[in-house]
Amino acid sequence: MSGIKRRGALVDVKRGCVELSHGSGGRAMMQLIDQVFLSAFDNELLAQKNDQACFNTEQGRMVMTTDSYVISPLFFPGGDIGCLAVHGTINDIAMSGAKPLYLSASFILEEGFSLMDLQKIVQSMAAAARDANVKIITGDTKVVERGKGDGVFITTTGIGVLAQPINISADRAKPGDKVIISGYLGDHGVAVMSKRENLSFFAPVESDTAALHELVATMIAAVPDIHCMRDPTRGGLASVLNEIAEQSQVGFMIEENTLPIREVVAGACELLGLDPLYVANEGKLVAICKSADAEILLAVMQKHPLGKHAALIGEVVADANCFVQMQTSFGGKRMVDWLAGEQLPRIC
Amino acid sequence: MSGIKRRGALVDVKRGCVELSHGSGGRAMMQLIDQVFLSAFDNELLAQKNDQACFNTEQGRMVMTTDSYVISPLFFPGGDIGCLAVHGTINDIAMSGAKPLYLSASFILEEGFSLMDLQKIVQSMAAAARDANVKIITGDTKVVERGKGDGVFITTTGIGVLAQPINISADRAKPGDKVIISGYLGDHGVAVMSKRENLSFFAPVESDTAALHELVATMIAAVPDIHCMRDPTRGGLASVLNEIAEQSQVGFMIEENTLPIREVVAGACELLGLDPLYVANEGKLVAICKSADAEILLAVMQKHPLGKHAALIGEVVADANCFVQMQTSFGGKRMVDWLAGEQLPRIC
Repeated sequence: MSGIKRRGALVDVKRGCVELSHGSGGRAMMQLIDQVFLSAFDNELLAQKNDQACFNTEQGRMVMTTDSYVISPLFFPGGDIGCLAVHGTINDIAMSGAKPLYLSASFILEEGFSLMDLQKIVQSMAAAARDANVKIITGDTKVVERGKGDGVFITTTGIGVLAQPINISADRAKPGDKVIISGYLGDHGVAVMSKRENLSFFAPVESDTAALHELVATMIAAVPDIHCMRDPTRGGLASVLNEIAEQSQVGFMIEENTLPIREVVAGACELLGLDPLYVANEGKLVAICKSADAEILLAVMQKHPLGKHAALIGEVVADANCFVQMQTSFGGKRMVDWLAGEQLPRIC
Repeated sequence: MSGIKRRGALVDVKRGCVELSHGSGGRAMMQLIDQVFLSAFDNELLAQKNDQACFNTEQGRMVMTTDSYVISPLFFPGGDIGCLAVHGTINDIAMSGAKPLYLSASFILEEGFSLMDLQKIVQSMAAAARDANVKIITGDTKVVERGKGDGVFITTTGIGVLAQPINISADRAKPGDKVIISGYLGDHGVAVMSKRENLSFFAPVESDTAALHELVATMIAAVPDIHCMRDPTRGGLASVLNEIAEQSQVGFMIEENTLPIREVVAGACELLGLDPLYVANEGKLVAICKSADAEILLAVMQKHPLGKHAALIGEVVADANCFVQMQTSFGGKRMVDWLAGEQLPRIC
């Protein structure tokens, strides 16, 4: 629950209704989380405002995270809701630098959903968990009547342990720090949208859904003092940078011509009217570290299969407005603002 | 995920669809869990087949559990989906003897759902967590289009720590052990059904939704060697006893005239065509302990506000068929079988 203290209009709780934009990863979602959830559940761990909570038990330092997956369609090029639900939650654990250990999985099934499809999804989860060396140790199934759900929704919760005394948190970006992205942007969102819209491209686009904890382990081994790390899922790179800008009270300056975007994805985004900066990724991370560490970090990332196309894309700047800006390919500058409405519903 | 190795017919995965009975807590659900989930996620922790998983981290002995809440209506006499989602998950932790520490909460919202209702629900969760001294430390919100959900579904996951070297597990019931229920049966199910069917009774029936971890703590302090403990939610007392019978390879003999059931609940069940043995409870537990401990355990339970009406209701017997049987008030015996179809959809 990455809830950011937002300026701007308040949510009209008294008369308002839930809108699709409340699930977009953008400004509307942040406002809803702030006004309704954070104020009610108020505690110092939730107030960390990271995608996972770190806490000390008498037994040690641990991390917990949860996500519901409502992606439509359930099967898409490069993956399905099952492996996505495993990868996404592993990644939220990994972004804290923790080692993911265990997952729970809870299913809300719609009456009439095909058991064959359910089995495929469950087997995909099992394979993803096995590959990641993480165990699904407890779960639940509920069934709702036809028309009260949509096939299957999956909620996974993960816990992990923090072995080293590291502190990776979205409030640690400092002016002068460098920003690294681990690879191509927008593959997941475009793969899902192309399936949804029945589009085909010259080159097929596949979701990048993947578990990033091993990449993260090599990164931390090389640079233990990574300042921030987050996976740019719903709302894309733009949303993650805006979140970190707010939490660290800094700005960002990104270089457009350093952004790794596949040609076919760029083309598809044009066709679909999407901005790749806002499109979801499911196997990518943004890392922020001090300038002196950036080349070392980039080099170890590029040696890992999931970081092959990693790139240095900009830097943290001092900015009391917490603006995210981009130096465009044409030499100008533009604002990369919070997503205001809903770009891609049910993308994860 | 309490999946029991079932004899009986297999689920037809190839041609079958999800039915409401797959969410009932009865036989169909167990078969689905076995065939589709347990076989895929196969690991020794899931194979414990309790409502929670116990595991050792390098940091100590911990417990994790998850549940999705899809109850309809969202508000019912005595509670709402919010406090239910907190109590239910705390109780699944508590049934292992662990102290619940932290919860995550994930929301699947339907487009158009009232924000006022959402706020009421969230505040109810917050109050329930505060009262139970448990923190909600991380979360997620997703939004689905109108007609693809039903207001709000909530998934809570809980973790707790096992301080003492206790082992409460559904495979530890032994012939001669006594069975204790902590109070009146069927209040939750009847409260929800009466709201759903717009019934009113002479005496109003309220859900018993409550967090049981403090009651459990006093029980363990008095009798550390409780053999089994489970909360009879979906599927009711009958389902819990059948699950434990299977897991412990024993039978049960229950005395009908010892079962604590409010008169108004018994009457409502007759009216609605329900058997109170199968009706959900949300603030009750079944405890099984050796005969010599039973009176002590019963006495400490009855001293606690949530165990005031606790009663000794029967005993564990040797039975290779793992049958649950009941000595009726009329002097006969009847089978208390697994729930075969769907009795009460979306009761939790």
